[in-house]
Amino acid sequence: MNFKALAQKYKTPLYVYDFDHIKSRYNELKDAFHARKSLICYAVKANSNLSVLKLLAELGAGFDCVSIGEVRRAIMAGAKKYQIIFSGVGKSDDELKEALENEILMINLESEAEMYRLESIAKELNLKARISIRINPDVDAKTHPYISTGLNENKFGVDITTGKKMYIYAKNSPHIEPIGVHFHIGSQLTNIEPIIEAAGIVSELVRELKALDIDIKFFDVGGGVGIVYQNENNVSLYDYAQGILGQLSAQDLTIVCEPGRFIVGNAGYFVTSVLYEKFNKQKRFIVVDGAMNDLIRPSLYGAYHDVNVVGKNTSAGLCDVVGPICESGDFLAKNLNLPACESGDLLVVKSAGAYGFTMSSNYNSRARAAEVAVQDGEDRLIRRRESFEDIVALEKDLM
Amino acid sequence: MNFKALAQKYKTPLYVYDFDHIKSRYNELKDAFHARKSLICYAVKANSNLSVLKLLAELGAGFDCVSIGEVRRAIMAGAKKYQIIFSGVGKSDDELKEALENEILMINLESEAEMYRLESIAKELNLKARISIRINPDVDAKTHPYISTGLNENKFGVDITTGKKMYIYAKNSPHIEPIGVHFHIGSQLTNIEPIIEAAGIVSELVRELKALDIDIKFFDVGGGVGIVYQNENNVSLYDYAQGILGQLSAQDLTIVCEPGRFIVGNAGYFVTSVLYEKFNKQKRFIVVDGAMNDLIRPSLYGAYHDVNVVGKNTSAGLCDVVGPICESGDFLAKNLNLPACESGDLLVVKSAGAYGFTMSSNYNSRARAAEVAVQDGEDRLIRRRESFEDIVALEKDLM
Ligand SMILES: Cc1ncc(COP(=O)(O)O)c(C=O)c1O
Ligand SMILES: Cc1ncc(COP(=O)(O)O)c(C=O)c1O
Repeated sequence: MNFKALAQKYKTPLYVYDFDHIKSRYNELKDAFHARKSLICYAVKANSNLSVLKLLAELGAGFDCVSIGEVRRAIMAGAKKYQIIFSGVGKSDDELKEALENEILMINLESEAEMYRLESIAKELNLKARISIRINPDVDAKTHPYISTGLNENKFGVDITTGKKMYIYAKNSPHIEPIGVHFHIGSQLTNIEPIIEAAGIVSELVRELKALDIDIKFFDVGGGVGIVYQNENNVSLYDYAQGILGQLSAQDLTIVCEPGRFIVGNAGYFVTSVLYEKFNKQKRFIVVDGAMNDLIRPSLYGAYHDVNVVGKNTSAGLCDVVGPICESGDFLAKNLNLPACESGDLLVVKSAGAYGFTMSSNYNSRARAAEVAVQDGEDRLIRRRESFEDIVALEKDLM
Repeated sequence: MNFKALAQKYKTPLYVYDFDHIKSRYNELKDAFHARKSLICYAVKANSNLSVLKLLAELGAGFDCVSIGEVRRAIMAGAKKYQIIFSGVGKSDDELKEALENEILMINLESEAEMYRLESIAKELNLKARISIRINPDVDAKTHPYISTGLNENKFGVDITTGKKMYIYAKNSPHIEPIGVHFHIGSQLTNIEPIIEAAGIVSELVRELKALDIDIKFFDVGGGVGIVYQNENNVSLYDYAQGILGQLSAQDLTIVCEPGRFIVGNAGYFVTSVLYEKFNKQKRFIVVDGAMNDLIRPSLYGAYHDVNVVGKNTSAGLCDVVGPICESGDFLAKNLNLPACESGDLLVVKSAGAYGFTMSSNYNSRARAAEVAVQDGEDRLIRRRESFEDIVALEKDLM
C-alpha cells in the first residue's frame, strides 16, 4: 500500500480500505460454514460506505441493518432485499413500515412492545411480517462493557421465557411469521467460548419451539468475531463455525452470522500527517491533522491502534499521538514507541476499517475525511472529503 | 418552553435552544468585567450553529475558534474579524494562511514549531502576525481528565520558560507581533480557584515581559466556567471576575475570556420521543429515538444530564434512558427516577446546549437532529434535519 502516493493524491486525514482484504475475509468466513446453508449478513454499522457494501453485495453477502438508513444504503448498493435483516432495539413506526414494504428477509424483534407495534403495522399494510426474536442468553462476552450486549442488565433482546411467549403469540398472529432466532452477545470477542455457549442455549430454545410446531429456519448468531489490534488471540474460524454447528446437531437450520469488524476492521487504515512534534516537559507529543472526530475509538473505548510512521523505523521513545481538537481526550494513541517526527511525516493508524469513519463527526467544525478504496492495485475515491460548504449547508439559509 | 408543540412541529430527536437565556448569560458575563476593558470571545466549539453565532455577534461578542472551519463560521455569522481569536494545538499551514489573510485579532500559538511556521507564512504574505502564546501553567483544574488541559502532561500550550523564550523571539521577528497571553486549564470548572491561581502565574509572566519591553495587551483567561447539570456548585461570576482582576492589579490589560459551556450549556434541550419501555429481568429501559450519535456526552465523559418526561411526574422507579444504537454504551442517562413511559411520550434532556449537537455523528446511518431556536416566545428552525440523501451525498456518485 503506497500511503505516500495516496496521501499526496487525496490529502490527509484519509481513510484507506484494502478491498482485496475485505473480499478474502468474507470468503474465509463463508468457507468456514461451507458444509451448511449459511448467510453472511455483513453488519453495515461497522463501515457503511456504499462502495464497501457494493463489494460485499457482489460477493453474495446479505446485510444486517440497524436503522432504515442502513437498509436504504444496502439497497442502494445492490443488496438483494431478501438478504436484508433489520435489527435494533428502537425502531420507529416509519422504519418498520418501510422495512415491511421492502419485503426484506426478516425484522429482528427486541421487545414485546415492538412485536405488537409491528403486528398492527403489518395489519394495516395487509402483510405478514417475517420476524426473528433477539434472545438475550445472559452470557458474559468478556469484552469492553460498552460493546458487551448479552447480559440481562443490557438493553438488548428478551430473556428466553419472554422469547418463548413471543414466539407463541407470533405463531398465532395472522400478521407475523416467526422464521428466525437471533442473539449477539458482544463485539470484539477474541475468545469464542461465550458465543458457543450462547448458541447452545438458543439452540435448545429452537428445539422446544419445534415441539410447539414453531419452525425456525434461520439461526442468527450475531457478529462479534474479534480481530487483532495488538496482540490479541487470532480467532480460528474453523473452531468458531464448528463450535456453533456442534450445538445445532441434526436441526435443519440456515446459519446466519453478522460480522462487521471481522470483515472490514483490519482492511482499513487511517492516514494522517504530522503537523508538529512538541515536548511538554519530558512528554513527547506528535500532533497530527487527524483527530477524535475522525476516529473516536481510542477516546471512547480506550481502544488500541497500532501506528506506523511511513519511511521511519528507529524509535525515539514513548509519545502520544494527538489531534488538533481542544480536549485532552483527543488522542489517537498513547505511550507508543515511535520515531522522531517532523511536519509532513505520514502516520498510518492501522485496523481502522471498522467503527472508524462511521462514528466520525464534525466536532470543532472539522470536515470529515475522504475515503479511498484500493483494489487490484488501483485506488479510487469512494467518498469525497467534506467541504466547509457541506458542513453549513443545512443551516446557512436559516440564519 | 412548549416542548410538545415543538416536537409536533419539528419532529424528534430535536435540539432546542433558548436564545433569551443565551443572551442573558452573555450579558451577565460581560457585566462581571464592566469596570475593565474586556472581550468575551465565545468558544465556537461548544455550539457552532450559525444562528447562535449570529446572536452573539449582534450582542458584541468576539469568537474563540479552533479550526478554520470555526473561523469561517464566525465570519459568516457576522463576527467582526478583529474580534476573532484562532487557537488550537494543531493548525495546518493552510489554516494559518487563511487566518492571517483575514486579519483576525490574533493567532494563539501552542508550540515553538508552530511559531516558526507562522513566521515563515507571514513572511511569504508580507504581513505581521499578531499572536498570543498559550501558557500551560501546570495547574490542576480538577475536572474530567478528558477536559482538563492545564497540566504539563497535557498536549496544550508551552511552559512558562519556553513561553518567555518564544515572546523574546517574537518580539525580535519582523513578522510576528506578540500582543496577547493565553491560558485555558480545563472545562466545566465549578471551583474557580485553579483559574485564579493560573491567572496569578501568567500575570507574573506579563510583568516580566513588560520589563523586557514586550507589551502584552490581551490577557486571555480561556473558558471553563462550569454550569449546573445536577447539583454542582453555581460559580459566582463576581468572584470569578474579581479573582482574575485581583491578579492583574495596576496592569493595563484587556481581559479576554472564552466561555463556551457557560453561555450555551443550560440554554439547550435535547428532545426525544419514547419508542418503547422494556424490562430485562428487574431492569427498566426507556428506549427513545435519540441516541449517542446525537448526544455523546453521557457515553464519552460519563456526563450527567437531567431528564424530564413531559406531562408526567410520579416516578416509577429507576431506569436507564437508552437509544436505538447497537451498543451498551448508547445511553442518555442511567439510574434515573422517571415515570412509567409509553410510546410517544416526550423526554427532555436538559443542559444539552454545549458539546451536544457539535459532537453528533451519523453513526448507525442515523440522520442528525434538527436544531430550533426559541426567542421572545417565537420558535424557528436554525438547522434542517438531515435526510438520507444528505448522508450519502458525498459517496453516492462514487460507487
Ligand atoms: C446485532 C449486532 N450484530 C452484529 C454486530 C456486529 O458486530 P461486530 O462488528 O463485532 O462483528 C453488532 C455490533 O454492535 C450488533 O449489535
Ligand atoms: C482554548 C479553549 N478555550 C475555551 C474553551 C471553552 O471551554 P468552556 O466551554 O468550558 O467554556 C475550550 C474548551 O475546550 C478551550 O479549549
